[in-house]
Amino acid sequence: MNAADGMNYAPVGEKKAVVKPGEFVFSAARLDHGHIYGMCNALTEAGATLKYVWDPDKEKVAHFLKMYPQATPAESEEQILQDKDTMMVAAAAVTSERGPFGVTVMEHGKDYFTDKAPFTTTAQLNKAKETVAKTGKKYMVYYSERLHVEGAILAGYMVDAGEIGKVISVTGFGPHRLGAKNRPAWFFEKDKYGGILCDIGSHQIEQYLHFAGEEDAEVTMARIGNYGHPEYPGLDDFGDCTLTGKNGTTNYFRVDWFNPDGLRTWGDGRTFILGTEGFIEIRKYINLGAENVSGNHVYLVNGKGEQYFDATGKTGFPFFGGLILDCLNRTEKAMTQAHAFKAAELCLRAQETAVVIAP
Amino acid sequence: MNAADGMNYAPVGEKKAVVKPGEFVFSAARLDHGHIYGMCNALTEAGATLKYVWDPDKEKVAHFLKMYPQATPAESEEQILQDKDTMMVAAAAVTSERGPFGVTVMEHGKDYFTDKAPFTTTAQLNKAKETVAKTGKKYMVYYSERLHVEGAILAGYMVDAGEIGKVISVTGFGPHRLGAKNRPAWFFEKDKYGGILCDIGSHQIEQYLHFAGEEDAEVTMARIGNYGHPEYPGLDDFGDCTLTGKNGTTNYFRVDWFNPDGLRTWGDGRTFILGTEGFIEIRKYINLGAENVSGNHVYLVNGKGEQYFDATGKTGFPFFGGLILDCLNRTEKAMTQAHAFKAAELCLRAQETAVVIAP
Repeated sequence: MNAADGMNYAPVGEKKAVVKPGEFVFSAARLDHGHIYGMCNALTEAGATLKYVWDPDKEKVAHFLKMYPQATPAESEEQILQDKDTMMVAAAAVTSERGPFGVTVMEHGKDYFTDKAPFTTTAQLNKAKETVAKTGKKYMVYYSERLHVEGAILAGYMVDAGEIGKVISVTGFGPHRLGAKNRPAWFFEKDKYGGILCDIGSHQIEQYLHFAGEEDAEVTMARIGNYGHPEYPGLDDFGDCTLTGKNGTTNYFRVDWFNPDGLRTWGDGRTFILGTEGFIEIRKYINLGAENVSGNHVYLVNGKGEQYFDATGKTGFPFFGGLILDCLNRTEKAMTQAHAFKAAELCLRAQETAVVIAP
Repeated sequence: MNAADGMNYAPVGEKKAVVKPGEFVFSAARLDHGHIYGMCNALTEAGATLKYVWDPDKEKVAHFLKMYPQATPAESEEQILQDKDTMMVAAAAVTSERGPFGVTVMEHGKDYFTDKAPFTTTAQLNKAKETVAKTGKKYMVYYSERLHVEGAILAGYMVDAGEIGKVISVTGFGPHRLGAKNRPAWFFEKDKYGGILCDIGSHQIEQYLHFAGEEDAEVTMARIGNYGHPEYPGLDDFGDCTLTGKNGTTNYFRVDWFNPDGLRTWGDGRTFILGTEGFIEIRKYINLGAENVSGNHVYLVNGKGEQYFDATGKTGFPFFGGLILDCLNRTEKAMTQAHAFKAAELCLRAQETAVVIAP
């Protein structure tokens, strides 16, 4: 793998199987983004059985097989689609192909688990919605910056427990290291990656909806720009956005590709959740200036005082086992389809309505 | 004084006189906000000579005289206005009276130094602009969250030195402890305090213009709400806002009155400055969870690595000596009149255009 380090973000967690071997079988296809490793780690840790892997690029498959020797290289994508054991297809295709591929997967009677962003156009989203309605299958999304970050999981528990009262506002920073030389060409073509608010913005909007308990929201301001990368005219290297939730909560997030070379990790991702009775700050991947590089730093401040929690190794990643059980039981406990689609819809709207402010 | 602790924020700095005793004489009038103490501390530390103090409330004057025994209680406001020695009047009137009082001060041939926010209406701003043009006097503003915070001063030096390249975006959080029982009644009357984006938002906009080097900006989104204080219907307890600068930089800030009781200080004020080559975070008044409560924590991350600076006692507060010299020399080195007025104009516009989102 020569991808930039953010592209290789693939946490390893505790093995906590919710099913026995063979009870939930999935296959991996389309290895265009390194997130496929995070997705497969988490699913297999939760007990899912990985059957096939497929990608047209044999080098990508060979690398994948080193990580997951239990997988069988498929002869074609069709082999996976036709496979009777495969209940779900996990895929990290080029962003613009995620929607169409998901439709194909669902039409073959399988659930679909895609890397984020799940779509690059509203037409793709609408087609996926139709197909979900028609087939009863799931179109689930790897919103990794919440689902695969223990600090974010813990913060969610704190909010649910009422530790900060009623949520008023969520602010998110999603800076990323570009590592342009190690990125594939599609990463810089806007019709392929979808624009920054659609791409890494999707994490932010999903988190906002989750932490604020909002089912719907309005994009009230969105900006994009290319401030420092004229050699990649298709790249938005900065974007920010505000949303107002249906229940009156507020969100601001900013995302960028300006993570400084001197930061000891790929981005100083933060989330701030303000409530009527307190606030939470998550320092997801690093605590600036601390001796060691480690993530999942959670600060909770309320009437009881200031409390610090290191969430690493504490919560695990309950989404993935939940997703397996949702697929088996046809429930929506880990995430509703409406939530996954709403985050997708809003990040598309943010991108579509964004004002270009630079250059 | 029974004011809430944020209202008493009055840093004490090193004495660093830029003039000899008697060379720059000022008087204090209208002690409605505790910021008058910060203003007088800083001016006297910079060598200014405090002559008179006046307020209709004798208790306020008595308290002031305990802090500044060198001051003489004036018999009336008029005595200060007519005093030939007094070159500047420092005042922290009720916000809605700051503009009209400043006009009176300038018409009496004296410079005016007011607590922020400097105005509650655009008409007041326009009248002050006219009077500055007519009299040649200064209408300067105590934007304390930058001018009186060493962490902010240091960050400004870092930006000026090019440590983070070209500034792209500034994000500010200005949470404040309400301490409602200790606030005067005017504090909860919107026509008197001006609304949250005008009041504590003014600090944020001033900082944005300064750090981003912007001379003008557009308010692109503004929201206000009362999420938790129905007993004070005139209070905005939350507000947030985005601005786009003329040069294409971006700003978001949020301000609120929800500082949790358990925080060991009156607000976890932060500023984040993102540049093309790095970023700066200022933790102004506290570093969450640290053993001791102290402020001025500055994190600088760029190509050279992650660096931490404790700015306490390092920079001092150069604005105030600069202001004295600007008054004496009729220069604008410490702050231009245009900058002070632009921050005022934009916070008024933010407040005027804000969408009410709660209740």
